Amino acid sequence: MTGTFSPGRRWLVHVAAAGVLLLAGGCTSMRADPLPSWNEGPVKQSIVAFVGKVTTPGSSSFVPVPERIATFDNDGTLWAEQPLYSQLLFAFDRVKVLAPQHPEWRTTEPFASLLKGDVKGAMAGGDKALLALIAGTSTGMSSDEFDTIVGDWMATAKHPRFNQPYTSMVYQPMIELLAYLRANGFKTFIVSGGGMDFMRPWTEKAYGIPPEQVVGSSGKIKYEMTAGRPALMRLAEVDFIDDGAGKPVGILRHIGRRPIFAFGNSDGDLEMLQWTAAGSGARFMGIVHHTDAEREWAYDRQSSIGKLDKALDQAKASAWTVVDMKSDWNVVFPFQKK
Amino acid sequence: MTGTFSPGRRWLVHVAAAGVLLLAGGCTSMRADPLPSWNEGPVKQSIVAFVGKVTTPGSSSFVPVPERIATFDNDGTLWAEQPLYSQLLFAFDRVKVLAPQHPEWRTTEPFASLLKGDVKGAMAGGDKALLALIAGTSTGMSSDEFDTIVGDWMATAKHPRFNQPYTSMVYQPMIELLAYLRANGFKTFIVSGGGMDFMRPWTEKAYGIPPEQVVGSSGKIKYEMTAGRPALMRLAEVDFIDDGAGKPVGILRHIGRRPIFAFGNSDGDLEMLQWTAAGSGARFMGIVHHTDAEREWAYDRQSSIGKLDKALDQAKASAWTVVDMKSDWNVVFPFQKK
Repeated sequence: MTGTFSPGRRWLVHVAAAGVLLLAGGCTSMRADPLPSWNEGPVKQSIVAFVGKVTTPGSSSFVPVPERIATFDNDGTLWAEQPLYSQLLFAFDRVKVLAPQHPEWRTTEPFASLLKGDVKGAMAGGDKALLALIAGTSTGMSSDEFDTIVGDWMATAKHPRFNQPYTSMVYQPMIELLAYLRANGFKTFIVSGGGMDFMRPWTEKAYGIPPEQVVGSSGKIKYEMTAGRPALMRLAEVDFIDDGAGKPVGILRHIGRRPIFAFGNSDGDLEMLQWTAAGSGARFMGIVHHTDAEREWAYDRQSSIGKLDKALDQAKASAWTVVDMKSDWNVVFPFQKK
Repeated sequence: MTGTFSPGRRWLVHVAAAGVLLLAGGCTSMRADPLPSWNEGPVKQSIVAFVGKVTTPGSSSFVPVPERIATFDNDGTLWAEQPLYSQLLFAFDRVKVLAPQHPEWRTTEPFASLLKGDVKGAMAGGDKALLALIAGTSTGMSSDEFDTIVGDWMATAKHPRFNQPYTSMVYQPMIELLAYLRANGFKTFIVSGGGMDFMRPWTEKAYGIPPEQVVGSSGKIKYEMTAGRPALMRLAEVDFIDDGAGKPVGILRHIGRRPIFAFGNSDGDLEMLQWTAAGSGARFMGIVHHTDAEREWAYDRQSSIGKLDKALDQAKASAWTVVDMKSDWNVVFPFQKK
């Protein structure tokens, strides 16, 4: 009776076929999960749902590819900012390297304290001390020379707690999110309070974000022609601070479109998130809440670095997505992957 | 004797076959010419040869896709800048529209002269008058409002000589060049002395260049929150002049990479071309020389708009590519196509 089945056997065949389909479907969707480091739950769901609706042709929330602009803060959003911003740790290292050429630093703050190993004393001078530090260590050379200095430091310096290169201190779930957005036609930008030229030498490799999509704070630059060779010289004068209310301004200047997707982690990102939220159509506003002292750090309203207070209140009031690092991420740094 | 040929007839067949091949080859290459508005000659050849060598894997001049950065001046390079920069003609029109709200303009220069139709008198005040004009007509509103004003003007205003919309005053050969570069993996940027926010509402449609790839001059911007609605307000204060030595600075700030290909038409582009030329590896520096009074305009060393003097000397000394508009372009504006 080859080729024919009793009703019972026919039923079995259907069930078996359906099982194969279910298994295949399950495997496909597991294999295809673009956000494996995000635990299932409302946060992951809010991301996937948003990307789904803005990329579905015919959806009332559909957004054409050129307008799929996503902006990310850097420090504390894409990589760690504790115990201090990496750019400061870079500047500290530069002070040590450059000290022999600057005998006056032995009696000038914040350099004097730093050279004695007293970071707290150096930081006591506040913003003025920080700017003096950056001016003293990151200006007076050409942009090409600075690129090389940053690149060399990134290749050799290690994070004080994790003993990893700084470019390994990136958040694995955010790396996946950036790639997921790009795979869905988004253009991903960094909009950071950090120095633009401190980020650009390594963001393409670390995040897949090219230099022209990195917006940040910057100093004045001067074009100089010396013996027929032009150079762009870094001057010891602040040009633009891309933080707080500066972020929407930096976005307008550099991008010229309002993001539909923005992610930050501190009050310095509040205006960027507000600006994103105030546009028409579908919008996604996300905040990384640092809640994991074991794998990373736990800090928010009281922190001097990455203070998250007003933005956390507004996130709750406006139903923005708040990532609870401890429960929403099954891995934080790539080197912690099992 | 079907199927065999005398030596004479065999020769004929070969010639016929070769003819078919030649014709086919000719048709293919004519159909595929990405620069049909460029006449054959050394200028077109220099472009095609450059693109060929930087995109050929294994070539000693090969440049990876992310580093294929091409920068173009706008006024006089991608579109017409005579009899006056379009942005000035826009400001003149705005003076007429806004005059009823500004009775004081009747006695204040440059507005008073303009309202009497005396452009020369208005321009007599030089840069100071121009800045007053732009401050008076293009600031004090939000960035979104300004976008709309520019878009509306572009949709309705006509060029005084050709009676065409300004977005039709683009150069057909340059449109082809932009598309040709993009098809070869280049990222194309505008780097213009003109106002960034005056260009961004229409460059994507006119040139295929999105707002985030438009670098230009800009005024200060302030983030303001009014009744819970954020706005980016345009202030009457210059922030950055993207001209002359400002162009390499604008390139560093916005792009963060040195172009390998740059095109300009005036002394205001000299530093951008020098900066491009001073990089390592293959480089292309081009200048549009306005030599066609009939189809466009003829001007260079003596012109008050788009003066081309030092850059023309350096182009000759350094063997940069100089486009002779009259002989190198078989069409100038798209509306002149036959």
